[in-house]
Amino acid sequence: MRVGLGQFDATVGDITGNVASMTRLYAELVEAGADIVVFPEMSICGYPAEDLLHKPHFLEANRTGLERLARACGEVVMVVGFAEGEKDACCNSAAVLKNGKIEKIYRKGMLPNYGVFDEQRYFKAGTKPEYIEVEGMRVFITICEDIWELDWLDDFTSPTGKKDLLLNISASPFHAGKLYERRQILRGCAKRFNCAIAYCNLVGGQDELVFDGRSMFVDFSGEVVARAKGFEEDTLIADIEPDDSGKCRTKAVKAAWKWGDVEERYKIEEVYKALVLGTRDYVGKNGFEKVILGLSGGIDSSLVAAIAAEALGPENVLAVTMPSRFNSAETITDAEKLAENLGIQFETVPIGEVLEEFDDTLSLLQGWGSEGVAYENLQARIRGTILMSYSNQFGCMVLTTGNKSETAVGYSTLYGDTAGGFAVIRDVPKTMVYELCRYINESQGREVVPESVITRIPSAELRENQADSDSLPDYDILDSILKGYIEEDKSAAQIIEQGNDAETVHRVIRLVDRNEYKRRQSPPGVKITPKAFGRDRRMPITNRYYQND
Amino acid sequence: MRVGLGQFDATVGDITGNVASMTRLYAELVEAGADIVVFPEMSICGYPAEDLLHKPHFLEANRTGLERLARACGEVVMVVGFAEGEKDACCNSAAVLKNGKIEKIYRKGMLPNYGVFDEQRYFKAGTKPEYIEVEGMRVFITICEDIWELDWLDDFTSPTGKKDLLLNISASPFHAGKLYERRQILRGCAKRFNCAIAYCNLVGGQDELVFDGRSMFVDFSGEVVARAKGFEEDTLIADIEPDDSGKCRTKAVKAAWKWGDVEERYKIEEVYKALVLGTRDYVGKNGFEKVILGLSGGIDSSLVAAIAAEALGPENVLAVTMPSRFNSAETITDAEKLAENLGIQFETVPIGEVLEEFDDTLSLLQGWGSEGVAYENLQARIRGTILMSYSNQFGCMVLTTGNKSETAVGYSTLYGDTAGGFAVIRDVPKTMVYELCRYINESQGREVVPESVITRIPSAELRENQADSDSLPDYDILDSILKGYIEEDKSAAQIIEQGNDAETVHRVIRLVDRNEYKRRQSPPGVKITPKAFGRDRRMPITNRYYQND
Repeated sequence: MRVGLGQFDATVGDITGNVASMTRLYAELVEAGADIVVFPEMSICGYPAEDLLHKPHFLEANRTGLERLARACGEVVMVVGFAEGEKDACCNSAAVLKNGKIEKIYRKGMLPNYGVFDEQRYFKAGTKPEYIEVEGMRVFITICEDIWELDWLDDFTSPTGKKDLLLNISASPFHAGKLYERRQILRGCAKRFNCAIAYCNLVGGQDELVFDGRSMFVDFSGEVVARAKGFEEDTLIADIEPDDSGKCRTKAVKAAWKWGDVEERYKIEEVYKALVLGTRDYVGKNGFEKVILGLSGGIDSSLVAAIAAEALGPENVLAVTMPSRFNSAETITDAEKLAENLGIQFETVPIGEVLEEFDDTLSLLQGWGSEGVAYENLQARIRGTILMSYSNQFGCMVLTTGNKSETAVGYSTLYGDTAGGFAVIRDVPKTMVYELCRYINESQGREVVPESVITRIPSAELRENQADSDSLPDYDILDSILKGYIEEDKSAAQIIEQGNDAETVHRVIRLVDRNEYKRRQSPPGVKITPKAFGRDRRMPITNRYYQND
Repeated sequence: MRVGLGQFDATVGDITGNVASMTRLYAELVEAGADIVVFPEMSICGYPAEDLLHKPHFLEANRTGLERLARACGEVVMVVGFAEGEKDACCNSAAVLKNGKIEKIYRKGMLPNYGVFDEQRYFKAGTKPEYIEVEGMRVFITICEDIWELDWLDDFTSPTGKKDLLLNISASPFHAGKLYERRQILRGCAKRFNCAIAYCNLVGGQDELVFDGRSMFVDFSGEVVARAKGFEEDTLIADIEPDDSGKCRTKAVKAAWKWGDVEERYKIEEVYKALVLGTRDYVGKNGFEKVILGLSGGIDSSLVAAIAAEALGPENVLAVTMPSRFNSAETITDAEKLAENLGIQFETVPIGEVLEEFDDTLSLLQGWGSEGVAYENLQARIRGTILMSYSNQFGCMVLTTGNKSETAVGYSTLYGDTAGGFAVIRDVPKTMVYELCRYINESQGREVVPESVITRIPSAELRENQADSDSLPDYDILDSILKGYIEEDKSAAQIIEQGNDAETVHRVIRLVDRNEYKRRQSPPGVKITPKAFGRDRRMPITNRYYQND
């Protein structure tokens, strides 16, 4: 039996477009000899469709889209994910299509309701996996979470007790290291049930999520036999046949591929690719071609400019440097150099005069002062307003450049540097920002990000001789505290026990807690860590909890 | 048996403060002769605590808080809600305290995971209600949602089959008309189980939610015998005794109160009180005393100023009018008059010079134009920046003034008029804004909001002779389309069928869909309708779904 996986970039709500993509890929895979063609979870309507699933007409549109796809389906079986049913009685389902008809429907049994997932808000749980017969083999259909816990499947079985192939259609979002987790899951499942697995994952960006694809075939022994590309559309084909002992052997057709070192370790490359795809899809799927960003010559905006140039093409990136008297000549030169290296448009719009006029106007109220935090924030807000004005005038999306460390402690100006449509590196800790810039230079074999940008002491340049370290601990310390507090839900006491300074830990935690309101008003960005701000971490703004011990 | 309900304003995370409030109220109710004292759902840690519930140390703090409260508990039984257990094995529980000890724990069986609720993200389901014996009576303990569906309770029973009193501790958020829904639920429950009900609800604002209190005693006949105050802390006491036929009669102790017309109808008064409480608690619980807002002389900012003055005292409200050449003398005069009527501070900060300087600076890039949407947005962003600068300088929170109709269709400037900490009337449709202003004038028996503000044709005053109706349908039409689309999840076809113009309906729906990104970056505001933007309606930003039929 030849199995074809159609790993494609479904857009949420674009039922017509998604059905068209699958129709095209189905023809392609049938042409390649497939006996069964498999598409990802919810591929009719995209994932996650969120509260669109509460609209009865959206569920109807899923059904008519599925029927249209069925009409394009010939003798070769197709398995496709869709939202089935009515409001308040909706299932996350897989349809088996054949000869123009919907032959069978399986409904997801395990509904994740943690992390970024809200499936129990939308779906009723289905049953244990059901099987279909294809080319004399038993093919069990499962959906994503169904196989992340295996105990509930122990007694699932065909009448003969045999399981030949387990299909798993998924919409599994990326974070660094997720591929390895998935492989462990698939390996465990294959071994436990002594069956081959065909794993078809979604690819593409959807708001803060990136689905990384990397669909796989896993042999009954747990070995990954073939893997589709990451972060792009791809098809993957394998033949699954019984060997002499009656066990189903999987043989990759399209690519002779081996699971290697590459997949075992956390790789900076995958983070870079996730950021590029997430940016490309957010900008493009929201109807934009061009982006604009403020380029200060600092490392964060340099990285975002490089990602944007890769994602959208250098011709679609406009970088604006907006110097005040606090910006050094070196950083401005670096900004220009980086723009040159990337081949993006570079413009200079000084803010000095607007700042002066604003300062005069604000002085109408007694108590206004031309220094301090308010005056620093004012500069950032003038820059935000300039970028947004050009965005409105020229129809380009503003990319913001704040990293996760800053976002965590609120080292940013609301409506200033946080103003924009997409916060590309919002989930990238500062220490990883450096890593990514070095990766870009290494992988391109040239100095894209100027070395001076990487080695300069970080500064927001909002007052004379400012340095980030005036307000924050060193970034390696900060990032380690943040990881403990945010990703690992550790207490202050536990983080101090790890060898951190008590006063620093308490200060950082208070900053994180107090700045929830800023994050709530900031644009979305690509999730690349196990726990990102946003739908992954839902904290109250009004929150008096604080542990001092 | 005398039952005392302690309806109090718990703050999320403030375990020490909440325990102190309950200790005080317990003493007060014991003094009043109560045999059992009841507090709302999750009253130890506040509701909803969201992802704080994922922190092991937060759950431990719940336990120690509960133990501290138990130590303050004497012979009179206390029933109190708290978060029980460990991460990934946490329950929404009610503890029965007596003589310094935790005597019994009941775990909520029905976990709402719809609308604003995410309880299946946090909690494991418990069991059917359990009972305790107090003064020889059987008292069943339930938590909120447990009694919103009754079928699952049909066989819950004490060994003798008798149910004397059903306690329900709740954290039930407000929307207009909710009281009536609750009464139907309580009445149905009392009749079905032939028991008295003591319903203790939370009061207070928590981010976008307002808990309205209005705790109740319901007799076995379904009659509401007593009701606590709405939108403020209160205690409520009743005696529950068997009558000659053995049925438990409820007799209010504190107040001779009758369910009246007041509760049967949707009342503009309750919306007003919800907005006042929501604003007071958001500002206060986040550590602010004073607020600042832009007062244009339009009806929206007038209403917000009036609510703020009521919530925080006029001495804590600073109104700034920021005229450009597009603002009429009449609106500026109205703004001043309103400020005078409210007794709030009023300042004028003209934006003309900053606007001119910005315009010059922006002209550095070819293609910038001094008219059109970008130029209009620029004015709003200058105003937003002025307010935020004063906010940063003076430590007051900016209140934004956009209503639900504008918020829905994106008739606002991101980082301009949406810039601020709290969006007081974000869930109030424009037609209700008028209703509220008239209510304020009527209830105060004087012209608080000048009549000219109420009767003037709405305009954003961002260009010459602008009127809202240039861009939007009349507000009564708009609000009716929005209600169908947002609150009722109707399709375009269904809304057109109701007698609306097809082109208008499609235009409005497209505007709603396209402006999700603006809402996502706007501050929270008080939920007062059955479906508010925010946690109540979770739509993807990237969303190509659109039905043209």
